[in-house]
Amino acid sequence: MEESHRTKETFNVTPWEVSGPVDYDKLLHQFGVKRLDHILLSRVKKLSGERLHPMIRRNFVYAHRDLDLILNDYESGKGFFIYTGRGPSGPMHIGHLVPLLFNKWLQDTFDLNLHIQVTDDEKFVYKQDAKWEDIDHHTKQNLIDIAALGFNPDKTFIFRDSEYIKNTYPLLLKIAKKITLSTARATFGFQNETNLGLTFYPVYQIATTFFEEKRCLVPCAIDQDPYFRMQRDIAESLGFKKTATLYSKFLPSLTGTYGKMSSSLADTAIWLDDDEKKVKNKINKYAFSGGQATVEEHRRMGGNPEVDVSFQWLKILFEPSDPKLRVIEHDYHTGKLLTGELKQILIERVNSFLIAHREKRKRTEKELDRYMYSGKLAKQMWGKQF
Amino acid sequence: MEESHRTKETFNVTPWEVSGPVDYDKLLHQFGVKRLDHILLSRVKKLSGERLHPMIRRNFVYAHRDLDLILNDYESGKGFFIYTGRGPSGPMHIGHLVPLLFNKWLQDTFDLNLHIQVTDDEKFVYKQDAKWEDIDHHTKQNLIDIAALGFNPDKTFIFRDSEYIKNTYPLLLKIAKKITLSTARATFGFQNETNLGLTFYPVYQIATTFFEEKRCLVPCAIDQDPYFRMQRDIAESLGFKKTATLYSKFLPSLTGTYGKMSSSLADTAIWLDDDEKKVKNKINKYAFSGGQATVEEHRRMGGNPEVDVSFQWLKILFEPSDPKLRVIEHDYHTGKLLTGELKQILIERVNSFLIAHREKRKRTEKELDRYMYSGKLAKQMWGKQF
Repeated sequence: MEESHRTKETFNVTPWEVSGPVDYDKLLHQFGVKRLDHILLSRVKKLSGERLHPMIRRNFVYAHRDLDLILNDYESGKGFFIYTGRGPSGPMHIGHLVPLLFNKWLQDTFDLNLHIQVTDDEKFVYKQDAKWEDIDHHTKQNLIDIAALGFNPDKTFIFRDSEYIKNTYPLLLKIAKKITLSTARATFGFQNETNLGLTFYPVYQIATTFFEEKRCLVPCAIDQDPYFRMQRDIAESLGFKKTATLYSKFLPSLTGTYGKMSSSLADTAIWLDDDEKKVKNKINKYAFSGGQATVEEHRRMGGNPEVDVSFQWLKILFEPSDPKLRVIEHDYHTGKLLTGELKQILIERVNSFLIAHREKRKRTEKELDRYMYSGKLAKQMWGKQF
Repeated sequence: MEESHRTKETFNVTPWEVSGPVDYDKLLHQFGVKRLDHILLSRVKKLSGERLHPMIRRNFVYAHRDLDLILNDYESGKGFFIYTGRGPSGPMHIGHLVPLLFNKWLQDTFDLNLHIQVTDDEKFVYKQDAKWEDIDHHTKQNLIDIAALGFNPDKTFIFRDSEYIKNTYPLLLKIAKKITLSTARATFGFQNETNLGLTFYPVYQIATTFFEEKRCLVPCAIDQDPYFRMQRDIAESLGFKKTATLYSKFLPSLTGTYGKMSSSLADTAIWLDDDEKKVKNKINKYAFSGGQATVEEHRRMGGNPEVDVSFQWLKILFEPSDPKLRVIEHDYHTGKLLTGELKQILIERVNSFLIAHREKRKRTEKELDRYMYSGKLAKQMWGKQF
C-alpha cells in the first residue's frame, strides 16, 4: 500500500517496452539486483588504473549482479569477457551508442574480448510489419555504425544472429531444453498471441554469455535483466558460469527525462545521420528544458539541471570533464547560463561527435571485416562449434 | 455420447506419442483429412505408368490432403517434389524404413526431387536425458542407413537440421512469426513444462515444404498431420503453396497390431543391425499370432491374418506379390499354414532384407556425400539462402 502512495504514475520496464516515470531504486528491488556501492567503485578504479568512465562515476551505470566476482576473477588472473548487443530494427540514434561506448571503455581499460550480438532475428519477429529485407538493410547499416566506434579489431567479434546460427544452434538447443514455456511466460510476459520466434529468441541472447570459458560481464541497460536472470538460473546446470551484469539507466529522449529515447518518435531522437542543421533545430525545438519561462525569471530563479535534457546529455555522454560539467551545472542553476546557451553547448558537442562519426564511418569497411570475420577473435569464433 | 459407447479403449495420436487401439477411420474425421478413393488411386496408377506400390494398393497408405492438386500439377507439367524425415533418437528399426521406402518408390516412379530432413534438433530437445553427443552419434549412423536405401543421388537432398540451419534460419523466422503461442499449444498440446526447443521445432518441419517453388507432397504416417495442418494455415500468407500430404497407418510392433513399433521397447522391434539369430528368436518369441492355441485347433479353425503381425508385416513390407500374399492369407485362414510356418516365411524375408541392407550399408560412404553435399540437388540446396 505504502508504495502505491509514493508513486502516483506507474512505470513499466521490459526488454521491449519502457514506459512511465522509471523509479530506478524501485527497479533494483523489483529485479533483485544490487546497487553499485562505493567499495566496488573503488575496486574498479584501482584495478583499471584509470579514472572511471563518466557514466559510472556519475551514477548513470548504477547497478549490477556479481560484479565483485568479475573483479575477483580479474585480480586472480582468470580474466573475464564482455558482451553487448544491438537490435537492428532501424537506423541508429544517439541512445543506441550508450552501451556500445561504455563497452568500448571497458574493453580498452581492461584489455577485454568483446562480443557484439546483432539481433536481426529478434527484431524481425518482434516488428509485426517488418520484412526480412528491411531488417537486413538496417543490419548492414548498423554494422558500419558500430564498427565506426573503433573497437579493438583483434579482441572484438561482431556477429549477426542469423549468420552465426551456423555455429551456435546446438548450444541454443541445449539452452532451450532447460527453459519451460511457463518460465518463459513468467519472465518475459509472453501472451497467447506472442509468436514462436519471439518465444525462442531469449535462448540466443543467453547463448552469448557462454561464448568463452571465462566469466561473462554484460554491461547494458537495466531493461535487459530478465534475460540474464534466466541465464543465471540455468547456466550451472549446463556446465557454464552465471553471468555478471552491469546496468545503466536510460538516456532520456529529447522531450523528457522519463523512459528512454524511442525510435518510434523520430523527431525526439538524434539520429546518427542527422546533419548539423537538423541537430540544431531538434535540440532547440524539442530538448526539454529545466529553465524558466522568461529570461528575466531565469536570471532571477535559475534553472533545474536535474530535469533539463541538454544538461543530462552532457552529463551522460558529451562532457567528460567534471570541472567543466560542474561549472555548467552551477551557472545553469544560478541563472547565469540561459537555456538557449546550454542548448548551444550541447548542439556543438553533438555535431562535432556526429561529424567525426560520419568521417570514421566512411573508413570502416576493412575494420568491419576484421570484427566480423578476419580479426583474431572473429576467426577464433568462426572456428568454434558449440 | 454415442462415440464413447462405440470405442471402449481410447487411443491417442500425436507426433510424439501413439497409444491405444488406433481407429484409422476416426482419425480421418478428427484430423479432417480425406480417404484415398478409387478415382484417385486410378489416377496415380495411370500417371505412374506402373503398378501401384503394395503399401498404397493394400490400403496401408490410406489418406491424403490435396493429392488431386499434386496430380493436376504433374499432369500439367508443373511437377511436384516430395519430402520425408527421420528423427535420429537412436538406432533404426524396420518401422522407420516404411516412409523412406515409400518415398523411394514415389521418387523412382515419378522422377522426383526428394528432401530428407534428419531432425537432430527435435530429438535432442524431446528426449529429456539425451546428450547432444548421443544424438550426434545416432544421426551419423542413421544417415548411413538412409543412404543405403539407394535414393537417386542427384535428386535427393539429405540434411541435418543443425547443419542446414545456416541456410534456413531466416525462413524459420518468417514461419515462426506467423504462429502464435496459442495456436501452437492447441495444435501440438504443448504444456507449461514443454521446453522452448520443442515449441520452436514445428517451424523447421514446416520449412522443408517451402524448399522448392513446386507444390510439396509429404508422404508420412498420419501422426504427422498437425505440422502440415499448420503449414496449410500459413503457407499462402508467406507466398508459398499449401503442402499436400499422403498418410499411412503405422507398422504394428511385433507384439501387436495396436499403435506403432516403438523404439522404447527394444525387444519388440527388429533393429537394422539385428543378426539372423536375433531376428529368428524375436519373431518366434514375440510376433503376435492370429493362430490357435494348438496345432489341432489351428488345423480345424484356421488363423486370423488380420491380427497376425507376421502376416501384416508381409503385407506391408515383405511380400510384394499379390498372388503369393493371397495364397499365404488363404492358407493361414484355412489352417493349412501353421503360425510357426508363417513366422518362418517372415524370418527369411526379414533376414534376407537385412543382410542385403548391411551389405549396401558398407558401400554408401560416397553416396552419402552426394546426398548431403555434392550431388546435383544437394549442391543446389547449399547454394540457396532462404
